[in-house]
Amino acid sequence: MASATHLLTDELDIVIPTIRNLDFLEMWRPFLQPYHLIIVQDGDPSKTIKVPDGFDYELYNRNDINRILGPRSSCISFKDSACRCFGYMVSKKKYIFTIDDDCFVAQDPAGKPVNALEQHIKNLLSPSTPFFFNTLYDPYRDGADFVRGYPFSLREGVPTAVSHGLWLNIPDYDAPTQLVKPLERNTRFVDAVLTIPKGTLFPMCGMNLGFDRDLIGPAMYFGLMGDGQPIGRYDDMWAGWCIKTGLPYIYHSKASNPFVNLRKEYKGIFWQEEIIPFFQAAVLPKDCTTVQACYVELSKQVKEKLGKVDPYFDKLAEAMVTWIEAWDELNPTGPGAKLANGKAN
Amino acid sequence: MASATHLLTDELDIVIPTIRNLDFLEMWRPFLQPYHLIIVQDGDPSKTIKVPDGFDYELYNRNDINRILGPRSSCISFKDSACRCFGYMVSKKKYIFTIDDDCFVAQDPAGKPVNALEQHIKNLLSPSTPFFFNTLYDPYRDGADFVRGYPFSLREGVPTAVSHGLWLNIPDYDAPTQLVKPLERNTRFVDAVLTIPKGTLFPMCGMNLGFDRDLIGPAMYFGLMGDGQPIGRYDDMWAGWCIKTGLPYIYHSKASNPFVNLRKEYKGIFWQEEIIPFFQAAVLPKDCTTVQACYVELSKQVKEKLGKVDPYFDKLAEAMVTWIEAWDELNPTGPGAKLANGKAN
Repeated sequence: MASATHLLTDELDIVIPTIRNLDFLEMWRPFLQPYHLIIVQDGDPSKTIKVPDGFDYELYNRNDINRILGPRSSCISFKDSACRCFGYMVSKKKYIFTIDDDCFVAQDPAGKPVNALEQHIKNLLSPSTPFFFNTLYDPYRDGADFVRGYPFSLREGVPTAVSHGLWLNIPDYDAPTQLVKPLERNTRFVDAVLTIPKGTLFPMCGMNLGFDRDLIGPAMYFGLMGDGQPIGRYDDMWAGWCIKTGLPYIYHSKASNPFVNLRKEYKGIFWQEEIIPFFQAAVLPKDCTTVQACYVELSKQVKEKLGKVDPYFDKLAEAMVTWIEAWDELNPTGPGAKLANGKAN
Repeated sequence: MASATHLLTDELDIVIPTIRNLDFLEMWRPFLQPYHLIIVQDGDPSKTIKVPDGFDYELYNRNDINRILGPRSSCISFKDSACRCFGYMVSKKKYIFTIDDDCFVAQDPAGKPVNALEQHIKNLLSPSTPFFFNTLYDPYRDGADFVRGYPFSLREGVPTAVSHGLWLNIPDYDAPTQLVKPLERNTRFVDAVLTIPKGTLFPMCGMNLGFDRDLIGPAMYFGLMGDGQPIGRYDDMWAGWCIKTGLPYIYHSKASNPFVNLRKEYKGIFWQEEIIPFFQAAVLPKDCTTVQACYVELSKQVKEKLGKVDPYFDKLAEAMVTWIEAWDELNPTGPGAKLANGKAN
């Protein structure tokens, strides 16, 4: 579908939660330099991130976030990579690609560097097929199609909202699995892109992620994590929609400290057992016709159903509403209006 | 999970719908010779299939089927590969592997011949994870696990009922796609095994398929196809359960004639648009506690809901009941009893 000429340089922003490692940008320069970067600097705002020459970027530290959002800045996490979602909010582009600074360029089995962004763009510009599984995986790739028995009425697919890239080398494990398998590395390059079927939950990872901001931007809130919160490393889990996963791979260089992670994840490991049935059962009323309205409705259900699990969810439900208010403030004629007019894309 | 020592030679039968090509068995000899073969000969019973020396087999032609099942033989298709399901019925083993005679041994990317049966056994002996999607795909493979955010309560998985292998070379396309893309070949070896999520429909192909006969044998009915029926090549579509797909690959050697296929599939292409919503909406009552009871209940719903689409479905619904009667006749203390006692595997 998408050829190399679909670079979307004017329609895509790259959001990076922070940059601790300047080699990161040098390594990605061949692929990322044509794009505009939005860097959301985590931690101490008095420190300066020196971005190498040649990159077009804007940088926000905590002081900037507080100045721009005022009291609503409370919905943006601090000292957690969830801070990146401020970048989703200030962007004015149709597409977002977000990547962590410990993600390096992967190589395909032939040893060729993988242009992860190009593959995300291909995924986002080709439809998803969430209503029926295709055993040849992505039917829109060159050399593939729908197999015998696939209903013809479903072959147009639906717009792809999220492109979820994967990771070679350090797998995205939780702290207990890291502790049990400290040496495990992912070396299997699976040459496939597939649609997560409708109604199926999966653990979304924000490390290497593209999405259509016009279509679902307001739903890509990564929650309240990190500093002052009882939980971390569950930011990306909190967001999920109709999604393609598989290619592209990045090379995940750094295993984070499993002991630190266990402290951050501790409550999440218990809570996820209650959160998942909640999402499996959640139903949104038909009169919610914008992403914003759906998200605010979801926040009510979070308060009502998950508030009993821990008071944290009351705070999170409030932050979800604050996030939508802040989004609408910064995006006054945003995607909500489009969806309300019946145009999904 | 399953090591090479799990060969299951005493617990698995190989069912082959017919053998038109004797090279087929020679090519598979290194992998299949230790197993018992059940060959269901399609077409003219006066013809003789000469099975090469060294194979342990039983062979049934149409006269045998008529003799064994009497009037109930009407549920077994004639002149269609759906005849193979007679072999599922006469087997007394826990597992079945079924393969078409135009499926040759595939090679992996390193050029090594793929022992498809060994991979099916690995798939069948390791659990499936239909309740939550894992982005590293099969978490039970060496070098893989559940990713961050995967609920710990779901990590045991559930018994795998079906292992759905794929095909290199000739893709399993319907007649219209064959006509549009006569030269397309599948050359992409996707090194992954994944669980089809619960509630997701997919087009099952009987070309290269393993399943747990004790668990779901009576549900693996391939319907009424071929001679005397208005439809063919939809046999395998009619069966489906909680299933692993992906590896192993076979090499599918022969593209069947798309014009002949179009004639066979013609009605199916229309009907599948009604059949799929039917299956999406079908609910089985809780008092159906055996596979047999579920299947008979499903036959009632087929008659009631799909009978309006075409009188063929009235016949099919009757054949489904006949199939279960014949199954129970040949398997008097069959898997139904086990399920009724609450043991699923």
